Amino acid sequence: MQTIERTHPQLQELKTRLTEINDIESAASLLYWDQATYMPAGGAAARGRQMATLRQLAHIKFTDAAIGQLLADLRDYEASLSYDSDEASLIRITRHDYEKAVKIPASFTAKFSQHSAQCYEAWAKARPENDFAAVQPYLEKTLELSREMANFFPGYEHIADPLIDEADHGMKATSVRSLFAQLRQQLVPIVEAIASQPIADASVLHQTFPEDQQLAFSLQVIKQLGYDFQRGRQDKTLHPFMTKFSTGDVRITTRVRENDLNEGLFSTIHETGHALYEQGINREFEATPLAGGTSSGVHESQSRLWENFVGRSRNFWQFFYPQIQAAFPSQLSNLSLETFYRAINKVERSLIRTDADEVTYNLHVMIRFDLELQLLEGSLAVRDLPQAWNERYRSDLGIVPPSDSNGVLQDVHWYGGMIGGMFQGYTLGNLMSAQFFDAALQANSAIPTQMTQGNFNTLHDWLKQNIYQHGRKYPPAELVERVTGATLSIDPFISHIKRKYGELYAL
Amino acid sequence: MQTIERTHPQLQELKTRLTEINDIESAASLLYWDQATYMPAGGAAARGRQMATLRQLAHIKFTDAAIGQLLADLRDYEASLSYDSDEASLIRITRHDYEKAVKIPASFTAKFSQHSAQCYEAWAKARPENDFAAVQPYLEKTLELSREMANFFPGYEHIADPLIDEADHGMKATSVRSLFAQLRQQLVPIVEAIASQPIADASVLHQTFPEDQQLAFSLQVIKQLGYDFQRGRQDKTLHPFMTKFSTGDVRITTRVRENDLNEGLFSTIHETGHALYEQGINREFEATPLAGGTSSGVHESQSRLWENFVGRSRNFWQFFYPQIQAAFPSQLSNLSLETFYRAINKVERSLIRTDADEVTYNLHVMIRFDLELQLLEGSLAVRDLPQAWNERYRSDLGIVPPSDSNGVLQDVHWYGGMIGGMFQGYTLGNLMSAQFFDAALQANSAIPTQMTQGNFNTLHDWLKQNIYQHGRKYPPAELVERVTGATLSIDPFISHIKRKYGELYAL
Repeated sequence: MQTIERTHPQLQELKTRLTEINDIESAASLLYWDQATYMPAGGAAARGRQMATLRQLAHIKFTDAAIGQLLADLRDYEASLSYDSDEASLIRITRHDYEKAVKIPASFTAKFSQHSAQCYEAWAKARPENDFAAVQPYLEKTLELSREMANFFPGYEHIADPLIDEADHGMKATSVRSLFAQLRQQLVPIVEAIASQPIADASVLHQTFPEDQQLAFSLQVIKQLGYDFQRGRQDKTLHPFMTKFSTGDVRITTRVRENDLNEGLFSTIHETGHALYEQGINREFEATPLAGGTSSGVHESQSRLWENFVGRSRNFWQFFYPQIQAAFPSQLSNLSLETFYRAINKVERSLIRTDADEVTYNLHVMIRFDLELQLLEGSLAVRDLPQAWNERYRSDLGIVPPSDSNGVLQDVHWYGGMIGGMFQGYTLGNLMSAQFFDAALQANSAIPTQMTQGNFNTLHDWLKQNIYQHGRKYPPAELVERVTGATLSIDPFISHIKRKYGELYAL
Repeated sequence: MQTIERTHPQLQELKTRLTEINDIESAASLLYWDQATYMPAGGAAARGRQMATLRQLAHIKFTDAAIGQLLADLRDYEASLSYDSDEASLIRITRHDYEKAVKIPASFTAKFSQHSAQCYEAWAKARPENDFAAVQPYLEKTLELSREMANFFPGYEHIADPLIDEADHGMKATSVRSLFAQLRQQLVPIVEAIASQPIADASVLHQTFPEDQQLAFSLQVIKQLGYDFQRGRQDKTLHPFMTKFSTGDVRITTRVRENDLNEGLFSTIHETGHALYEQGINREFEATPLAGGTSSGVHESQSRLWENFVGRSRNFWQFFYPQIQAAFPSQLSNLSLETFYRAINKVERSLIRTDADEVTYNLHVMIRFDLELQLLEGSLAVRDLPQAWNERYRSDLGIVPPSDSNGVLQDVHWYGGMIGGMFQGYTLGNLMSAQFFDAALQANSAIPTQMTQGNFNTLHDWLKQNIYQHGRKYPPAELVERVTGATLSIDPFISHIKRKYGELYAL
C-alpha cells in the first residue's frame, strides 16, 4: 500500500486516522497482556479503568463522522479498483466495520468494558471457591448488556445473530445450528463406539515434568514450526492467549502443569497456530483493519490445524519423539513412540473443554452454543444455568460435573465477554482446519513425509500464500471457497476422525 | 479527595478529564516499559509510533480549551480553600501544568516524540560502534528542537531556564550555577586529597557473582527496605529506570553484571528509592497530576538517600553483610565487613557517571550541565562536543576517555530526550538527600541503630510523612524548607562527605 500516498488524498487521510485508532487499540492490548502476565496485584483497579478508557477512545475516534465522510468520498474510487486490490479491500473492510460501529454508542462501549472487568474479577474469585451465586448478578448484567448490544442491530432473525456475526461474519444461529446438528449426528455414534472400547492409558503424561524443561522443549518445537521470535515471544499466564501489538510483535502465552505434559505443550502449539496466522499477514497492512484474522472460526482453524493435524500426528512425533525423550530421559526413555502417540490421543468423555480430545471437543462447544441461545432468547434464566449445564453434560457426555468450578464456571468467555457468539468459532474452526489441511495435502502430497523430517515449510508457505497473507481481505465463507473450492462442510473433519480414531480404537 | 464528588461539579468534571489523560499517559509508560524489558526486536518500528500517538493525544486532551475554562471557573472556589488542602493543590498544580502545556503545540509534541525515538535508535547503534558522527545529525536536530521548546516560553533570562524549570521547578541557570560553583570549590580539594592517598582495593567486588543469586539477594534487600511487591515488581533492562502505571503499580528495572557486585545491587537500591517515593504518595491522588514526584531533584534525593545514606553505610552492612556472605560464601566468607565496606566506597576519578562514587559523582554532572548550557547558547557546536567533553574530563577529573563510547556517548539523556535540564537534578538530588537525611536523624536519633538491626521503618515512615505522601503538592524549594526548616544548601552534603570519607581516607 505504499502507493496510497500518491494515489488518493482521502485514502491517505483515512489511513492516518486508522493508524491512530490502531495505536490506541494496540496500547489497550498491551495493557491486557501485561495484566495477564506480569502486573502486580495492586495494579488491577486502575488497569480495568485504563483499558476501558482506551477502548472507548478508539471507538469514539473510529465512529467520528469524518470517517463516514471519507468513506462516502471514496465510493467512486473504490468502484474503479479491482475487488482483490489492497486499496479496495481496505476501503471495503473499513466501511463494513464503520457501519457496524456507528450503531454502538460510545457510552455503551465504556459501560460494557468496565462491567466486564468487574465480572471477570468476580469470576476469578468465584471459580476457585465454587461459588456461582457470587457471580450470578454480574452474569445477569452481562446478559442484559449482550441483549442491549444485539438490539443495536435490529432486523435480526435470532437475537444471537448480531453477536455471532461479530465473531464469524456471515454466520447466523440457523446456519450454525444446521451444521452442528449434522456434526452431532455423525459424532455421537463414534464417541459411543470408542467409549465401549478399553480406555487408552495416558498415565505416562502424568509423571513429573519440570516446568523449565517443558518450556524449553516447547520453544524448540515452535521455532521449528516457523514461529518468528524476532517478532514474538512467549510468557506464562493463567489462561493462554495470543495477542498482537503490531505485525512485528505477535506474542503468545502459555501455562504449564508439572504433572501434565499435554497442557503446556499443546497449548503452546495451539497459540502458535494463532500467531503464525498473524505473523503471516501482509506486512503492508500494518496498522489498518486488514491486519488481523478474518473471523474467530478461521483463527481457530489455524490453532487447531497446528495443534491437531500437525502436533498430534504420528508424522510429527516421528521427528520430535527422540527429542522429547532426550529432554525427559527418566520419564520417557523406556516408552515407545506408539504408546506415547496413543496417550496424547486418548479419547474420553470428560468435564473440561480445553482438556478435551479431538473427538469429544465439539460436544463441549455445542452445549455452550445452545445454552447461549437459550439465555439470549429468555428461555433459560441465569440462575438456572448451572442446572441446565449439568443436565446437558449428563445427556451429551454421560457425566455430571461434581462442582460448578468444573462445570459452568470453567470458561472465562461469558464472564469476561458477552453471552452470544463466544463459542461457535471453536467448532467452525475444527471443521475448517480439516478442510484446509485436506486442500494443503492435495496441493502438496509431500507434506506428511516432510513432517517426519521436521520440515514444516511447505505447509507453512501454503497457509501463508492461501490464507495468512490476506488478513481480513476475504470474509470466512469466501475464503473457504477460494482456498478449498467448496463451501464449509463437516465431511473432511468427520473423515479425519474416522480415519485417525478408527485406526487407534479399531472401530 | 472522596469529597470532591459532592462538593463541586466543575472540579468533578476536571477530575474526570484528568483521569482520562492520566490513563493515556499510563498506557504510553507501559509501552515504554515493555520496549525496555520484553519487546521483541520486530516491535520497535510500530512502538515508536504508538508512543508518539499516545503522548500527542494526551497533550491534545490536556490543552483542550475546556480545561482552561474549568480552571477559570474554579478560581473562586480555589480561593475559598486552604492552600494545603488536596482540592486547592489539585487545582493549583493542574493550572501550573496547563499554563505551560498550552504554550507547546501538539504538532511539536508529536514531532519531538518521533525524533527522539529515531535519535535513540541511532545512539543505541552508534554507542557500541564508537561512532559519534553517525548520531551527530540527530543530535543537531535535538538541539534545534530543544531551542524551539525553550522559545515557547519567551522572557527567560537564559535559554536553558524553561528546560531546567520543567525538570526542577523554580530553578534557573543562574541559581544552579551558583550552587554548583560553591560545591565545586569544596569538592575539588577533597577529591585531590583522596587522590594523593593509596587507591582502595575493590577487586573483591569483581569476582564472579552469578546473576540469579545477585537478583535474589537484591530482592531480599529491597523487601526489607519496604518496597511493596504487591504494588510493584523488578525486571531486567539495559538502562535501569523506575516507572509507574498507577499508585498500585510502581515498577523498577535493573541490570546485573556477573563480574561487578556494585552494579546490580546499587542500581536496584537506587531505583527502589524512586519507587518508595511513588509508592508513598497519598493514594487518593490516583490518576491526578498530584500523583508524582515533585521534581527531578527531589526524586533523585530519594534514590540517592536510599542508595548512599542507607545502602552504602556501615550501619546497613552491619545487618546485611552476614546475609550477603551467606549468599556468596565462596566469594565473601573470608572477607571482613570493613574490607567490603571500603570496597563499596572506593573513591576514584573515573570515566562513567553512573559508576562514579559519591565524592566524584557531582563533577561528572557539572560537566554535562555546563556543556548543555554552551550548546543551547550556541557557544559550542554539536560537532565539537566530543572534544569539549574530553577537555573537561581532562581538566576536572584528570582523565581522558579513550573513546566516545566511554565519553560523550555514555548517557542516554541527550539522545533520548532534550538538550537542557537533563542533568542538574542529579546534583540537586545529592544535595537534598543529605539535607533530608540530616532532618530525619534530627527527628529520630534512633535511625542509625535501627539500620544495624535491619529496621528501616522509622526512616521510611518519616519520609512518607514529610515528603512522599504530598506528591506534587509543594514545589521543590518549598518542600525543602517545610521539611528541613532551611533553604537548599551544599553544607549538609559537604559535611557528610568530609565525615565519611575523612574517616575512610584519613584526611
